[in-house]
Amino acid sequence: MSDKHLSTQFDAELSGISTRVLEMGGLVESQVAQSIQALTRFSSDLAAEVIATEERVNQMEVEIDRDLSTIIVRRQPTARDLRLLIAISKTIGNLERVGDEATRIARTVRRLVDTGVFGRVRLPVSDVSFEASLATAQLRKALDAFARLDVDTALAVLKEDDQIDQEFDGLMRKLITYMMEDPRTISASIDLVFVAKAIERVGDHAKNVAEQIIYIVKGTDVRHIPMESVESAIR
Amino acid sequence: MSDKHLSTQFDAELSGISTRVLEMGGLVESQVAQSIQALTRFSSDLAAEVIATEERVNQMEVEIDRDLSTIIVRRQPTARDLRLLIAISKTIGNLERVGDEATRIARTVRRLVDTGVFGRVRLPVSDVSFEASLATAQLRKALDAFARLDVDTALAVLKEDDQIDQEFDGLMRKLITYMMEDPRTISASIDLVFVAKAIERVGDHAKNVAEQIIYIVKGTDVRHIPMESVESAIR
Repeated sequence: MSDKHLSTQFDAELSGISTRVLEMGGLVESQVAQSIQALTRFSSDLAAEVIATEERVNQMEVEIDRDLSTIIVRRQPTARDLRLLIAISKTIGNLERVGDEATRIARTVRRLVDTGVFGRVRLPVSDVSFEASLATAQLRKALDAFARLDVDTALAVLKEDDQIDQEFDGLMRKLITYMMEDPRTISASIDLVFVAKAIERVGDHAKNVAEQIIYIVKGTDVRHIPMESVESAIR
Repeated sequence: MSDKHLSTQFDAELSGISTRVLEMGGLVESQVAQSIQALTRFSSDLAAEVIATEERVNQMEVEIDRDLSTIIVRRQPTARDLRLLIAISKTIGNLERVGDEATRIARTVRRLVDTGVFGRVRLPVSDVSFEASLATAQLRKALDAFARLDVDTALAVLKEDDQIDQEFDGLMRKLITYMMEDPRTISASIDLVFVAKAIERVGDHAKNVAEQIIYIVKGTDVRHIPMESVESAIR
């Protein structure tokens, strides 16, 4: 077999894996969206669907990881190709953790709905929903950047992460006000604190995926570089 | 060079990396312990030390990851050796996240100390400290298991994780009681909620390290297997 032939096979294998990473990304993205719909619609059923999807997400992670290992052993990749394979493995690790966060949200929502909390206390659910729309947009953008290995889009994801953090901080202040005004809301508000935190983490994972894309394309590990220095580090 | 020679070099490289993983583990373990000391002693200085250590931890992760990649490209490892190298990479990823959690705790403590909160409100700091002692013990046990590739100790870490979860749940109930009794404690209590959550995550990372050890030794990916089935899955 010629090198070209080998390389074409490698590309075909990579492209197959890339498709499945995007499929896994789409799945966890809809898990997050659905967990928040469950919250805004007080739907225990929607929450249950999110929880039921967890197993499939986990399975996808294990399978893609296994296939990546097989490729490394069979193809004995160059440093550059290995960088790509490892970055894909880190990407799916992040996607799996997005799925975990969505499942955590769904479990909390199911408990809140089932105990009838939403009938008893007023909670800033629409603010949580807004924070989630920012986080899922970031995740979608990171996945688009992954599909096209697009560094500019990946950079945009890094830059926009602090919007979610600001939204999270505002939501915390609001929840604290609710709790101080009506101590009966404290227990449910603490649950929303964790939901808001889980959404913030989804944004962090989107950022991690974006960092992996920059690593794939530019070869620069920007995970621990301050945002203001990232652009100069990769030019 | 004979195969034996190659394999001996590989072993020497692995043993060098293993030593540095344990060093990194020791460093993040003391970060966690120190961040909690900062909390119990109301010490802004101790908190600042934890934060200052973050950069070194990040650097260690990047260096060990780079060396792992170099070994994979140069040695063209077998499936079994690759499994080990990937598991080491996942292990240091978890250790780095432990360092992140310690840094988060330290930042919160520094803010609480600097704003003089501890002089104004009573907080269940000793309960948080107890939860942290469980988590650091789990982390140390996971690192011991890594050093000796000891599956039984790794299994013990998996089994004991729910102790931390129970401690966390108890602490949440206690904090909610404090907040309801005295709404002036709400804001600081929310900070402690996040500290308690960060400690719980340290326990989760210790568990993840333990799962990687089982993967290295047994070749079974137990990440998504329920605890009650893990032992039968690896026998």
